[in-house]
Amino acid sequence: MSEYNAPIRDIRFAMEELAGLASVAALPGNEEANPELVAAVLDEAAKFATEVLSPLNAVGDREGCTLSGGEVRTPPGFRDAYRKFVEAGWNALDCDPEFGGQGLPRLVSALVRELWKASNMAFSLCPLLTAGAIEALMLKGSEEQKRIYLPKMVSGEWTGTMNLTEPQAGSDLAAVRTRAVPQPDGSYRIFGQKIFITYGEHDMASNIVHLVLARLPDAPEGVKGISLFVVPKFLVGADGAIGARNDVQCVSIEHKLGIHASPTCVMAYGEKDGATGTLVGEPNRGLEYMFIMMNAARFAVGLEGVALAERAYQQALEYARTRVQGRDIVTGAPSVTIIHHPDVRRMLMTMKANTEAMRALAYVVAAAQDAAWKHPDAGERRRNQAFVDLMIPVVKGWCTETGIEMASLGIQVHGGMGFIEETGAAQHLRDARITTIYEGTTGIQALDLAGRKIAREGGASARALIAVIGALDGDLAKVQGQDFAAIRSALAAGVEALRLAVDHVVAGFGRDVAAVAAGAVPLLELFGIVCGGWQMARAALAAAKRLEEGAPDADFYRAKIVTARFFAENVLVRAEGLALRVIHGGGTVMALAEEQF
Amino acid sequence: MSEYNAPIRDIRFAMEELAGLASVAALPGNEEANPELVAAVLDEAAKFATEVLSPLNAVGDREGCTLSGGEVRTPPGFRDAYRKFVEAGWNALDCDPEFGGQGLPRLVSALVRELWKASNMAFSLCPLLTAGAIEALMLKGSEEQKRIYLPKMVSGEWTGTMNLTEPQAGSDLAAVRTRAVPQPDGSYRIFGQKIFITYGEHDMASNIVHLVLARLPDAPEGVKGISLFVVPKFLVGADGAIGARNDVQCVSIEHKLGIHASPTCVMAYGEKDGATGTLVGEPNRGLEYMFIMMNAARFAVGLEGVALAERAYQQALEYARTRVQGRDIVTGAPSVTIIHHPDVRRMLMTMKANTEAMRALAYVVAAAQDAAWKHPDAGERRRNQAFVDLMIPVVKGWCTETGIEMASLGIQVHGGMGFIEETGAAQHLRDARITTIYEGTTGIQALDLAGRKIAREGGASARALIAVIGALDGDLAKVQGQDFAAIRSALAAGVEALRLAVDHVVAGFGRDVAAVAAGAVPLLELFGIVCGGWQMARAALAAAKRLEEGAPDADFYRAKIVTARFFAENVLVRAEGLALRVIHGGGTVMALAEEQF
Repeated sequence: MSEYNAPIRDIRFAMEELAGLASVAALPGNEEANPELVAAVLDEAAKFATEVLSPLNAVGDREGCTLSGGEVRTPPGFRDAYRKFVEAGWNALDCDPEFGGQGLPRLVSALVRELWKASNMAFSLCPLLTAGAIEALMLKGSEEQKRIYLPKMVSGEWTGTMNLTEPQAGSDLAAVRTRAVPQPDGSYRIFGQKIFITYGEHDMASNIVHLVLARLPDAPEGVKGISLFVVPKFLVGADGAIGARNDVQCVSIEHKLGIHASPTCVMAYGEKDGATGTLVGEPNRGLEYMFIMMNAARFAVGLEGVALAERAYQQALEYARTRVQGRDIVTGAPSVTIIHHPDVRRMLMTMKANTEAMRALAYVVAAAQDAAWKHPDAGERRRNQAFVDLMIPVVKGWCTETGIEMASLGIQVHGGMGFIEETGAAQHLRDARITTIYEGTTGIQALDLAGRKIAREGGASARALIAVIGALDGDLAKVQGQDFAAIRSALAAGVEALRLAVDHVVAGFGRDVAAVAAGAVPLLELFGIVCGGWQMARAALAAAKRLEEGAPDADFYRAKIVTARFFAENVLVRAEGLALRVIHGGGTVMALAEEQF
Repeated sequence: MSEYNAPIRDIRFAMEELAGLASVAALPGNEEANPELVAAVLDEAAKFATEVLSPLNAVGDREGCTLSGGEVRTPPGFRDAYRKFVEAGWNALDCDPEFGGQGLPRLVSALVRELWKASNMAFSLCPLLTAGAIEALMLKGSEEQKRIYLPKMVSGEWTGTMNLTEPQAGSDLAAVRTRAVPQPDGSYRIFGQKIFITYGEHDMASNIVHLVLARLPDAPEGVKGISLFVVPKFLVGADGAIGARNDVQCVSIEHKLGIHASPTCVMAYGEKDGATGTLVGEPNRGLEYMFIMMNAARFAVGLEGVALAERAYQQALEYARTRVQGRDIVTGAPSVTIIHHPDVRRMLMTMKANTEAMRALAYVVAAAQDAAWKHPDAGERRRNQAFVDLMIPVVKGWCTETGIEMASLGIQVHGGMGFIEETGAAQHLRDARITTIYEGTTGIQALDLAGRKIAREGGASARALIAVIGALDGDLAKVQGQDFAAIRSALAAGVEALRLAVDHVVAGFGRDVAAVAAGAVPLLELFGIVCGGWQMARAALAAAKRLEEGAPDADFYRAKIVTARFFAENVLVRAEGLALRVIHGGGTVMALAEEQF
């Protein structure tokens, strides 16, 4: 079983040199995020991830959760780890200081979250869901709801859940049927069944605060008739004291491919006289509120792709460095470690390059979230928000699809041992496999990108991004050598492919929406690799600058340039084929009648 | 849980129109393989696969095998299914009639095997391993070995295994340490441990015949000192009667990601006084014998990729046809089945197109195996053998990598339900994940392709193939319409990319073997998609001809043309990017020092 090591060197590089920690710390209200504090937070988080969370990753997968008498027991060690997590204040990291949070920037919470996800993805889902529920209450909760729930949710004493899905309402929440019946005292009784509720029930916290989508009796049909309710597991008095058990039960937990330690619950509301809840915000606007929160949730799932790719890479690298097998193809030396074999190297470089590119892009987007939120200039806020909105489906879709690929490559590096569960490499693939599905499948991300984020605004944000990436060409041209020539040429081809694809989407969306929708996933992948290549090119430039300055750690910077070139020559080269798929690939997608399949 | 339906229509099309069953049946000794008999075999096999094997696929996965007191118990129903399999004569299908086989062509056994693999891959591995052991004994066994073992192995009463791997000897069999000590009576005592032995122990047959690689006391080091031995579980008298239990034990079974119903055994030879075995063929030539058999084994694993892609496709299609979710993006109709959504269609078309392309290529290679074996003209035999040798790593590597991808897409079509084990979609991915590893990883296939099959002969066979594919251009040009124009243009670009890549490999192998080796997997993928596109183009031409003739089943032929175009515009378009990776991608692969990872 492998140990996880927090990739602090690369995290710092991406955070400082690419995402611009200094600029983020200069935003009003972010004064605390000075380099010393952030370094200390990162070191402490790394310690917690490696010492507490990582050792529970395999046991969590093996033992899973159990349900008995409506109560879910998490795997051995999870309760204790969660207690330590709360005690150390990790849950409150990026929350509002008004409710006990530490108010650190999104950029800092992004990298800390990467560590939780990489060390123990199943565990990390609990605080992730709590964060989503906190955000909903922060945005739309009443003063009383905030006062009652937020302090204990921010500390992590209570956890949160998001109850959206029902058997007939998955990607399409318009079909939600759960009912909310108004009571004379202003509260509501909730009746209905929710499925796929992550940490819907567990033994790590003294209360669980469910946010539940339901319909009021007079609600309009479809998406415009869905409201959001807070429904705690235990009722909470106005004084914040825990009261009676609410009428909400976990009736079963799913047997899943991965994330075994994260209980995925079927929740029954109102099997007796109705689960007591209170309305969040205004009636019939629940889905709208969910959409406001969606960026954060989708970004967080994108980070899971980064994290699992990193974890899989570390494990594969460790195996490749120690497993002796076969002869060196160049020197003929017998019995070398497999890291000497070019094809194993290719796999390791692929994992390394993709992981670094994804991390860089995710952090850059996190920093833009901070700027969109806190920049003193309204124009800068708008510009950053437009960039964030455009990039969210890319970070979510591309990083998760790539995360699965990297986890599968990690198995491949292990050969036969990768297929043996005890090795641990297979768990990363099994865990990763959910990430392209939940919080909106890749297809839904891609449609969001092509339709809402590009076509609807005539491609303005996308073209602005293309111009920014294109402008890097001048900087790349100034650096000598084959590495930069190769990076420059692949990036230029990628930018051109992206430009053609965006033009096609803008022109084609109104004309043949089905064909554009059919090309949306290739479009998303194209965005992903070009933006990844953009960040790797920036990374190479930053590294060249440091080398010129004679910075220590020259090996790291030299490796960064090589890795950027590897990305250009092995990943970015897919750009033209992807653009062809965007432009021509959709034509046949709807051409068969259903019976012809 | 999905039911499997044998895809008889497409199997017959690929077998008759693309692989040329008529020509195979015209080969001397294949007279029995007339269309009526083959159709009857196919129908019966389909019945067996759907009625007996498919219903055991999920239970086999869920229950797995158990080991107790050295005995392995297969999952409920497996013993009985195997008995029926043997009674129906399926094991003997393509075996030599001299030993009770039916002597049917490779082409016919390939399609029948696809059905076993698709309906129950874990089950199918037992007869697959027996077939490998039969082939070894047919090729190199003594008259007595053949007489004693073959009739019962051909019938399936006894099963066979291949014992190659040891903990330190996986891809590199030169490191085998198992010892064989000669005895005065001409037999040998075997001592050592073998791992990853598929069906090394089980309860479905009355004897298990192990073929074991081991070293004689005076053997030279490395690959030239390995001999092959027959070591039965129960000793067999000269009269064929079962005697005493041999000193070979299953000491543990692996806990694997997939193929749970197939016991993967650690086998201990000679824990007491040595396992009694007899030498196969000459001393120190065991590895050479293994290589002779390798084509058949690798081809069979390639078929697993085809089969699992088909199975995953069927299950995804069934779900997409029945699951109601969301609004039709074109008509706006609410609550449609998800097959109406362009992105779901894209996934289904991707699965359909890849599966049909892989099947066509695999059957064409199977037919070439028949011609290489039995064609009356020596030149034709040589030409076919060269094609088979070139294609084996492609069928193995490309079909298995694609099979994994398709199984993962199958999960994606299911959304959240795909992640739930009871749905059954995840099993196909877990089962498929071994196929790129065993019988030589994709990296090893790719090195075989680039080195042994291309560079060593200066690219002659590869260029002959490129010429054959290129010659299709004239036929494609003769057919009117956009479908054929699109197919023609993508295939031409694919052929050109392949030509450049092959030129690079031929020129570069001696100069920078590491860079070529680093580009070998992209080269293999390039071969796969161009050969797949070649077969789909042939399929489209055959379909156009049938349509022109006014053949019934016009829907099938029209779908074939659309599917071929989809393949051209969505899969073949990757060719240029792959060629770039072959030519330039390897440069950075070895550029980092080990410490820079």
